[in-house]
Amino acid sequence: MNTTELTGKYDFIPESYLLDFRGRVTIPMIGNYMMHAASNHATKRGFGFSDMTERNTAWVLSRMAIEISRYPVMSEPVTLYTWVDEVGRIFTCRCFELVDATGAPVAYARSIWAAIDLLTRRPVPLDIEGLSGYIADRPCPIEKPGKIGVIETETEGVPYQVKYSDLDVNGHFNSIKYIEHLLDLFDLDLFREKEVRRFEIVYLSEGRYGMPLTLHKMETGPDRFTMAICHEGKAICRATALFSY
Amino acid sequence: MNTTELTGKYDFIPESYLLDFRGRVTIPMIGNYMMHAASNHATKRGFGFSDMTERNTAWVLSRMAIEISRYPVMSEPVTLYTWVDEVGRIFTCRCFELVDATGAPVAYARSIWAAIDLLTRRPVPLDIEGLSGYIADRPCPIEKPGKIGVIETETEGVPYQVKYSDLDVNGHFNSIKYIEHLLDLFDLDLFREKEVRRFEIVYLSEGRYGMPLTLHKMETGPDRFTMAICHEGKAICRATALFSY
Repeated sequence: MNTTELTGKYDFIPESYLLDFRGRVTIPMIGNYMMHAASNHATKRGFGFSDMTERNTAWVLSRMAIEISRYPVMSEPVTLYTWVDEVGRIFTCRCFELVDATGAPVAYARSIWAAIDLLTRRPVPLDIEGLSGYIADRPCPIEKPGKIGVIETETEGVPYQVKYSDLDVNGHFNSIKYIEHLLDLFDLDLFREKEVRRFEIVYLSEGRYGMPLTLHKMETGPDRFTMAICHEGKAICRATALFSY
Repeated sequence: MNTTELTGKYDFIPESYLLDFRGRVTIPMIGNYMMHAASNHATKRGFGFSDMTERNTAWVLSRMAIEISRYPVMSEPVTLYTWVDEVGRIFTCRCFELVDATGAPVAYARSIWAAIDLLTRRPVPLDIEGLSGYIADRPCPIEKPGKIGVIETETEGVPYQVKYSDLDVNGHFNSIKYIEHLLDLFDLDLFREKEVRRFEIVYLSEGRYGMPLTLHKMETGPDRFTMAICHEGKAICRATALFSY
């Protein structure tokens, strides 16, 4: 297969009732588009949710980095491309490119996934040979998600308890909901003046129903914030957000 | 136009990443499907979001009742029908029927909408003649949303502050997010054992960013709960939920 055949293409039209107060698509919404595209692209190739469940496994999102140069607005048709970029022993990287109606890219993302055993919740080795056949040679010009420093020891933290609406079909804290709760730590004025240009997240362990958490945020540079979600003082995820005009 | 032409028809396939921990579509998700259908159906007929904005007005959801006999599961194709049922001086009623792949209804809903002036935030008279042309003669066999009793004076209330992710494109508390927060008041065990069979909500005033709220819930009958969201002791919405096996 060539690069075009290996790349999934998914069309979306952002709906009025899903936009933020500025009338723009949000990062969690783009995250949902990415999950839709990833899920459908994988299913079509025989390694989707049901295929994984049959083997008592599930995909879990391990890291994600997204860079947004322009936030799509209401009723503006957008297209999301997704492809497999790398396959390793434990992790596989899936990339995304979001383009507008003129074909101009407005966002890129890199996501790192692992497959876990549904019983042990531990990573299982990937079928490197099988999955490698899906690797597309297509550029994703953003840096990979990297290491994120510890900030929870230096910040107070806002208490939060995992709720029904936070849970995914595996009964764990939904990956996209982490992002929603972290962005809610910022004051609305920041969203009025600036945009998140790069958001990065590392998932460290699974959140469960009723778990008492603390949400942490610290300014670690000009317009740069580091965040963490902790359970009993231990981070279950870390993230960074870079804002600019 | 006949009933078929007057009725909007929208197809959905519930995605794995949007399901709840039981692998079912949630009420807020069905709510999002309804907003999608309502928004597109209205736009096609010249009274959608942008048409309303041009006249300095916006649709606001005033009341909603939904009855669900069976919750759709992952990858199960569903179709949502929507039509205008009634048009009055201030309020119009839009109905919904959700059917499965065999055409069997799994849910019905009735929603009551008002148009408000974007500046005064007060209701404006509806174009009864214009809108009445869209009324479809199609049955919606569930009771209209009714009056909901006061329970906030008898319950403590869980504090909640309106966040960035709660806001809609008008800068107000998103109608569907109210439902999400209210359902989060129930213990997960209840969702394990039973299902919400009827959910009803009345929106009384607009929630705004940072507003300190209290979320109230009281058992008011067997498997019947009344809820309220209050600001400074005054309800901004009331709701009821009826659970059964």
